[in-house]
Amino acid sequence: MNMARPLPSYLIQRFHGWRATTWQDNKAWYRKLATGGQHPRAMVISCCDSRVHVTSIFGADEGEFFIHRNIANLVPPYQADGEPHGTSAAVEYAVTALKVAHVVVLGHANCGGVKGCHDMCSGHAPALEEKTSFVGRWMDILRPGFERVSHLPEGDRLGALEKEAVLVSLENLMTFPFVRAAVETEELTLHGLWTSTGEGTLEQYEPELGRFVPV
Amino acid sequence: MNMARPLPSYLIQRFHGWRATTWQDNKAWYRKLATGGQHPRAMVISCCDSRVHVTSIFGADEGEFFIHRNIANLVPPYQADGEPHGTSAAVEYAVTALKVAHVVVLGHANCGGVKGCHDMCSGHAPALEEKTSFVGRWMDILRPGFERVSHLPEGDRLGALEKEAVLVSLENLMTFPFVRAAVETEELTLHGLWTSTGEGTLEQYEPELGRFVPV
Amino acid sequence: MNMARPLPSYLIQRFHGWRATTWQDNKAWYRKLATGGQHPRAMVISCCDSRVHVTSIFGADEGEFFIHRNIANLVPPYQADGEPHGTSAAVEYAVTALKVAHVVVLGHANCGGVKGCHDMCSGHAPALEEKTSFVGRWMDILRPGFERVSHLPEGDRLGALEKEAVLVSLENLMTFPFVRAAVETEELTLHGLWTSTGEGTLEQYEPELGRFVPV
Amino acid sequence: MNMARPLPSYLIQRFHGWRATTWQDNKAWYRKLATGGQHPRAMVISCCDSRVHVTSIFGADEGEFFIHRNIANLVPPYQADGEPHGTSAAVEYAVTALKVAHVVVLGHANCGGVKGCHDMCSGHAPALEEKTSFVGRWMDILRPGFERVSHLPEGDRLGALEKEAVLVSLENLMTFPFVRAAVETEELTLHGLWTSTGEGTLEQYEPELGRFVPV
Repeated sequence: MNMARPLPSYLIQRFHGWRATTWQDNKAWYRKLATGGQHPRAMVISCCDSRVHVTSIFGADEGEFFIHRNIANLVPPYQADGEPHGTSAAVEYAVTALKVAHVVVLGHANCGGVKGCHDMCSGHAPALEEKTSFVGRWMDILRPGFERVSHLPEGDRLGALEKEAVLVSLENLMTFPFVRAAVETEELTLHGLWTSTGEGTLEQYEPELGRFVPV
Repeated sequence: MNMARPLPSYLIQRFHGWRATTWQDNKAWYRKLATGGQHPRAMVISCCDSRVHVTSIFGADEGEFFIHRNIANLVPPYQADGEPHGTSAAVEYAVTALKVAHVVVLGHANCGGVKGCHDMCSGHAPALEEKTSFVGRWMDILRPGFERVSHLPEGDRLGALEKEAVLVSLENLMTFPFVRAAVETEELTLHGLWTSTGEGTLEQYEPELGRFVPV
Repeated sequence: MNMARPLPSYLIQRFHGWRATTWQDNKAWYRKLATGGQHPRAMVISCCDSRVHVTSIFGADEGEFFIHRNIANLVPPYQADGEPHGTSAAVEYAVTALKVAHVVVLGHANCGGVKGCHDMCSGHAPALEEKTSFVGRWMDILRPGFERVSHLPEGDRLGALEKEAVLVSLENLMTFPFVRAAVETEELTLHGLWTSTGEGTLEQYEPELGRFVPV
Repeated sequence: MNMARPLPSYLIQRFHGWRATTWQDNKAWYRKLATGGQHPRAMVISCCDSRVHVTSIFGADEGEFFIHRNIANLVPPYQADGEPHGTSAAVEYAVTALKVAHVVVLGHANCGGVKGCHDMCSGHAPALEEKTSFVGRWMDILRPGFERVSHLPEGDRLGALEKEAVLVSLENLMTFPFVRAAVETEELTLHGLWTSTGEGTLEQYEPELGRFVPV
């Protein structure tokens, strides 16, 4: 039994608005992309959060960014165990098939997934520790980051953990042999960002300084 | 060793352009979203493909859609095995924490992931059959869909398989107890879409007709 | 005898600055462009004027725009006479080889070439009427535009003629069979712009209104 | 019938980004340039190629360079036949009206125009030999350069021809009486450059050595 239901009419209306304006104005380009294939310059790994759209922040049009979005913009460590790994598949496709020049991990303020991780690791969210909690098991990826911020004062910990979600992902990216190889041959660069859309700010990680700095 | 590099300056310039325009014009709303939390109406599951941005097609602003993007917009079957499952975590968070009213699966034309699945299942892509191929193991999720289109003439199979990627995902969504429960109590509706951005078209699955129909 | 002289050292210094920053940060992309070829989305035809750099106005990085710059952003009419025509060659290459989706003609305020045309057509620049004046013979392309603005008050004529330089070029573009064909099959769209960098404004031509309108 | 279409909205957004940042920060200078006229120090003749922006390589701001861009950075020989010659007009305007101190010809790696010339002169591109091929007739300017590299091994010929495009242009520049006069009175110097943006290198022609040398 397929449960699919008709799309809410306001979305159908919006689609026709897109078709009559954006698509109409860009159809030559969209058709070229359809027939000639995509050549995105960068992969962006960002959060599912409805408040953080990288296409908006970077004024991106079709064709520019290959975008993977998951809870808390996490990349798990390399684990070629024959099981399905959606994030790893996206990274593999971007780096080995599309040969993007940049992989950008974009973290953000007020991340619900990071907060869940914080609460779970602090012992305040037993439900997330259940084997059956998909969010909990996913946020386990960020546990090494929690260890690194647990000494901080309570009020600073959550923001620091959001940035750790970026750093842990960058570290895990380097465990993928094809990522490491492309970085070492300088065919690929990695970038760590954190944005607060509420404040309209963007920071990038600077390894020399060991911290995030406003751009 | 963290390999993060400075962001290309054209992206920094674009960010400042966004801050000076879109953010400036919407900052009251963005701040409200930051402090009051997100209340997205729908979750959208779409492909990482750089040519398909649901925020563009549906003219979305910050706060409306909780967006998960992976290769070929796939949802795996429910499997609470204690391993990290990024897609399942995103679905769980959207349905149980954010309580979205809709989950929309958006497939698309010229999907590289679906083509990989087609080639692999046809025996023409041995590399994808390797245990170490993340793309191959991820696209295994679509194998049941390939079975259903394998009788079609060669020329029709790929397009049909793109639509199967939507249908298989909808079916797999219903294997999640919290999804099924919310659908049955009518707190949640599921929707299957397929778009060709090259042609500027959008189709939705109509269960009564058993096929996709232009909106 | 080759008269080439060493480059002024301030330019050598600047090159090394570019190499140490922009190139260093983008080399993966620049190498990919070098080996994989360019896929620019648009051709831009703009003036040589040192005050109007389209890469600045549109925050463009390497790979986005195929840019032809000549005096007064003019396109001559189609004339396949076996003589070298640099502008026509650039248009042919962009449309038939690169298959760009857009051709943008960008005019601008205070254009010296347009002023020369105005003076020449008004009878105040006899030197430009000489057969040996390259600027004069090039600006002859704009004579049909001068006819259309000659009835205007003296003070309005120059600005109107700058915009005619865009319109005449758009008209002449349509005399190229390969441009017309691509426009008619909607593989290509043409766009007419006029900018005042002094005022920080950009206007586009709207055929329905028959005039340029601020964006 | 004017076929102009609305500008893609991502370019409008980028323009507003430029206006809010670059223009806002520099408006006093841009206004002075608008009212006081341009005083560029140099003319640069470079290729239309989307991968080679001289404003980037030399970190140029508005007002510094008068830039002519055509296919393969070519200057045809002096020919005052009363026909429109866009490149000659640009050179004339730069040298006699703006009185620039330098004319820089900037060649580059992976030049599609030079490759077309190579194929045509080798007898492998009959379409480019047609009278109606604008690219072919334009690249005829480089035929004398092909003669000088045709003795080289196949693998060296294309790179050598890219540099010949610079040298032929410098030679042709000296056939313009006003260029020769300004060079002889030392009011003007000519410069020959070749860049590989993929490798991040810049070479300049040294007449004493008879070859290009990295700067």
